Amino acid sequence: MSHVLVLGAAGMIGRKLVERLVEDGKVAGHEITRLTLADVVEPTHPPGLALPVDTHAADISAPGEAERLVAHAPDVIFHLAAIVSGEAETDFDKGYRINLDATRALLEAIRNFGGDYHPRLVFASSIAVFGAPLPERIADTFQRTPLTSYGTQKAISELLVNDYTRKGFLDGVSIRLPTIVVRPGKPNKAASGFFSGIIREPLNGEEAVLPVGTDVVHWMASPRAAVGFLMHAAELDGESIGHDRALTMPGLAVTIAEEIATLAKVAGPAKTNLIRQEPDAAIAKIIAGWPRSFDAGRALSLGFKADASFEEIVRLYIEEENIEV
Amino acid sequence: MSHVLVLGAAGMIGRKLVERLVEDGKVAGHEITRLTLADVVEPTHPPGLALPVDTHAADISAPGEAERLVAHAPDVIFHLAAIVSGEAETDFDKGYRINLDATRALLEAIRNFGGDYHPRLVFASSIAVFGAPLPERIADTFQRTPLTSYGTQKAISELLVNDYTRKGFLDGVSIRLPTIVVRPGKPNKAASGFFSGIIREPLNGEEAVLPVGTDVVHWMASPRAAVGFLMHAAELDGESIGHDRALTMPGLAVTIAEEIATLAKVAGPAKTNLIRQEPDAAIAKIIAGWPRSFDAGRALSLGFKADASFEEIVRLYIEEENIEV
Repeated sequence: MSHVLVLGAAGMIGRKLVERLVEDGKVAGHEITRLTLADVVEPTHPPGLALPVDTHAADISAPGEAERLVAHAPDVIFHLAAIVSGEAETDFDKGYRINLDATRALLEAIRNFGGDYHPRLVFASSIAVFGAPLPERIADTFQRTPLTSYGTQKAISELLVNDYTRKGFLDGVSIRLPTIVVRPGKPNKAASGFFSGIIREPLNGEEAVLPVGTDVVHWMASPRAAVGFLMHAAELDGESIGHDRALTMPGLAVTIAEEIATLAKVAGPAKTNLIRQEPDAAIAKIIAGWPRSFDAGRALSLGFKADASFEEIVRLYIEEENIEV
Repeated sequence: MSHVLVLGAAGMIGRKLVERLVEDGKVAGHEITRLTLADVVEPTHPPGLALPVDTHAADISAPGEAERLVAHAPDVIFHLAAIVSGEAETDFDKGYRINLDATRALLEAIRNFGGDYHPRLVFASSIAVFGAPLPERIADTFQRTPLTSYGTQKAISELLVNDYTRKGFLDGVSIRLPTIVVRPGKPNKAASGFFSGIIREPLNGEEAVLPVGTDVVHWMASPRAAVGFLMHAAELDGESIGHDRALTMPGLAVTIAEEIATLAKVAGPAKTNLIRQEPDAAIAKIIAGWPRSFDAGRALSLGFKADASFEEIVRLYIEEENIEV
């Protein structure tokens, strides 16, 4: 018997996570008996479900909201709610309010619940906690010196999750998601959007702009792998993780050139003509500060699994989104 | 012409910093024309000073206090105000309020001042940002995974100082102070207190309790070296530091055995009989999670200077505090 709360349930990963929770009917080995879904816009009610589902349109940075969401003592909390990197950079106050203050409000609501309540909290962090100068391959023990406000807010949240866990107020796990590729739907405000765009737009017969060179390397995972990370983080034995509850998830180090070659292989070389190279110095500068490749040894030893190949990532997208190729 | 604000001016390091500022009459190459001193208790007015000095009893976590303190646009701000490690561990709310919220209030007050105001902020951080498992010698690029709330609050503040600096709201430098030895005066609530106590108390003819083994190694600096770090941090060229404005200060890796041997050498072997070994598993566990030795290469290359030897540290203490030996 498990009550699951998903914050950020209306986002891309949130929706896919909810689908998976409904499909599995259980989390961390326990049957899901109640589902609470929250986001800044009201999340969709999963269809044809026997168990009780509450959906909330909530700004968890608003006074009392976090308390309201944990009022029924969820056993597993997935915290995916965030302002994306581009918007957190342009709207400094909003980024800190949602990505830091709301996270802290959630931690405080759990801490102040009282009794012996200490739920598993799975916090979606990001590889944006790392910033240049970076080694070619980043060890699990490498410092976090983010170069964006978004990365700063994620790094701070990881520290808070560790401290609240250490104090016994909750049982947290922070997972640093790679950049999610291929994101379905429309471009969002993330500076990393083009990593998906150069696959997604051509597959839809549309033009995609590539603002960086083809030698750029990036750390990627499919939406399905990301959901797998979240589900696995929910079931991990906390003690086995150790003091530092923040884990870099295993991804694939993929170059833009590999992305383009894979698009050609899977959907035909003509599709690659839809990628228009239009160098953008501002974006190139942001990307240059980002990590490229990791030794995700800790996560691998705890059983987290990366995608098999970039080709599999593209084929998954085509299958899940019913794209004609 | 420089207006200097010292937050935490009534603390041990704060008082020594003010003495040095008064003695030098300048900071970062500029004549000090105004001095604002604040602490939770009203700081002492430095005697015989021609320039304007304001002293404030202020809780900078209280609404409006940070704005009040930066109202006259100080050019250099030393932020030393903090709840010490032991108290931050036992009073979770107070620790976060003073060590995190107040720091953030200060950063926001500076940011919201407007115009082209972006003062040099020197933030006193701590090696408590590091936590086990630790290598024997810690590189500048090693991760910060604190094992105390105090260390967490300092690590978060460093991230905030970096982000506010990157955004151009201020010009910050965070310096990670080693444990300060020999602290004059009475023991405080810091778990590291005995590193000073086993020198200070015997020199005063009093008994000191040693709660850990003599093989324990710790990273130390004298109060004079700490003040030197602060003064140097105020005058550094920000650009030369790079994106990561947090620097581990050069200290000395000293064993308890070396401390005892130095006490014997400087004040006679009889004094060491006043050190009573009384192992305390709780303190030993805290200390075991602390760093021992650093490669402080970045700070050294920027011109920060460590003490010459532990013997010099003890002799400095004897001289500055007018101890009879």
